[in-house]
Amino acid sequence: MPIGVFDSGIGGLTVFREIAKHFPKTDLYYLGDTARVPYGNKSPETVIRYSLECGNYLYNFGIDALVIACNTASSYALDVLRKELDIPVVGVVEPGVDLALRITRNRKIGIIGTQGTVKSQSYKNLLLEKADVEVYQKACPLFVPLVEEGMIDNHIAKMVVKEYLDELIEKGIDTLILGCTHYPLLKDTIKKLYPHINIVDSSQAITEYLQKHHIPKDETGLRKIFITDESPAFEKLKSLLIGNIPVEKLELSQICSL
Amino acid sequence: MPIGVFDSGIGGLTVFREIAKHFPKTDLYYLGDTARVPYGNKSPETVIRYSLECGNYLYNFGIDALVIACNTASSYALDVLRKELDIPVVGVVEPGVDLALRITRNRKIGIIGTQGTVKSQSYKNLLLEKADVEVYQKACPLFVPLVEEGMIDNHIAKMVVKEYLDELIEKGIDTLILGCTHYPLLKDTIKKLYPHINIVDSSQAITEYLQKHHIPKDETGLRKIFITDESPAFEKLKSLLIGNIPVEKLELSQICSL
Repeated sequence: MPIGVFDSGIGGLTVFREIAKHFPKTDLYYLGDTARVPYGNKSPETVIRYSLECGNYLYNFGIDALVIACNTASSYALDVLRKELDIPVVGVVEPGVDLALRITRNRKIGIIGTQGTVKSQSYKNLLLEKADVEVYQKACPLFVPLVEEGMIDNHIAKMVVKEYLDELIEKGIDTLILGCTHYPLLKDTIKKLYPHINIVDSSQAITEYLQKHHIPKDETGLRKIFITDESPAFEKLKSLLIGNIPVEKLELSQICSL
Repeated sequence: MPIGVFDSGIGGLTVFREIAKHFPKTDLYYLGDTARVPYGNKSPETVIRYSLECGNYLYNFGIDALVIACNTASSYALDVLRKELDIPVVGVVEPGVDLALRITRNRKIGIIGTQGTVKSQSYKNLLLEKADVEVYQKACPLFVPLVEEGMIDNHIAKMVVKEYLDELIEKGIDTLILGCTHYPLLKDTIKKLYPHINIVDSSQAITEYLQKHHIPKDETGLRKIFITDESPAFEKLKSLLIGNIPVEKLELSQICSL
């Protein structure tokens, strides 16, 4: 029962890594569409087309469940992929929402993500559908480039975090959903600035979700990572994120033609 | 004698706008590959493939000269495009280099750009080929997202500019090449922080170059802008950059199939 994970880039490797830790004997495939990253600044139609290409590519390995480890793709393409594929498809939105609702005490929840994720209102709509809560959103387009620059705890990181988050905190939220797979790498800085806030991290939320819904069988514990481009950010974060798991570079034509 | 201009996104519109101002009667075509922006974090092979697709698309309008208004593409794809097309192709590197060499007094020149541009060493190599100068480079991956966030003169913009540029200034440079078409929008902030530095701006450099090398004929003064995706950043900066020039969205398949 292999699991496939895809993301617009390498941020989803935080999710892949967490799943790998908790499913040691399950075969895992990852596709990072680094040739077209980021999805957060693309239109919905473009995000849907790219997501279908990534999902179909992994599907052909006989995966038994597909994880969309990209918040923008989860927001726009989840329904289309569920319709297209005959396996369970899980995005990062629902697990994050469920976890946030479990831990909030004052029912005031903040959401941060890319412009695409925030504009889609996917987290907000699902939270309001499931519970009577107050929801505040904020797009943080500088967070991904900060992380990819390795600026996760210097003075600039702190200032940018404050620039984006102060207004959310002032609304009185007690829980903050990190609606982007890059953001867990800023978690320590956010925690230091706002120690009283509960932080909901996609990679933990989705792993908990899979542990409930996916029954693993003993496989070879294969880990296979595909990327569409060898980007500098990938080279920089590779060893930190995936150790020595083999990586294969695909041509875009290999996934576009599907 | 129409001119075609392409860029990975919308930054090249600073170049398009400057050319339009100085060639009022020349027909101008612009293609911004906003569906795959940025190129700065892609590998050389991927940048070359994308650039060929953009160049060929514009070539089919019967343009008489092609401007690569993207520093990453100029660094990697200029030679390939010159070989492929039978019209003059001009990148932003050579005009910027020539202008910098004209204005430096102490022959110490700084270059800032994306990771791709800096890694390609295209500015550095051409400067050293043409003159006996000292050259210092610095990649500034946060500048493009800053500009696209509209943070061009706030406290974060100033701090990030200082973070990247202080070490260049300490080398004693008197001239700084803005090796990315987004960076002219940070020019005022850079000038305020380092008033004694000469700043070389791509859009001015390339327009001066065209004025010397391109003999305009009276045409209809047509302006036509194509983009491959209607991104939020484009929507945000559109009116500022291009006023009410008509924009047509292309499907990627329209340029990929060439």
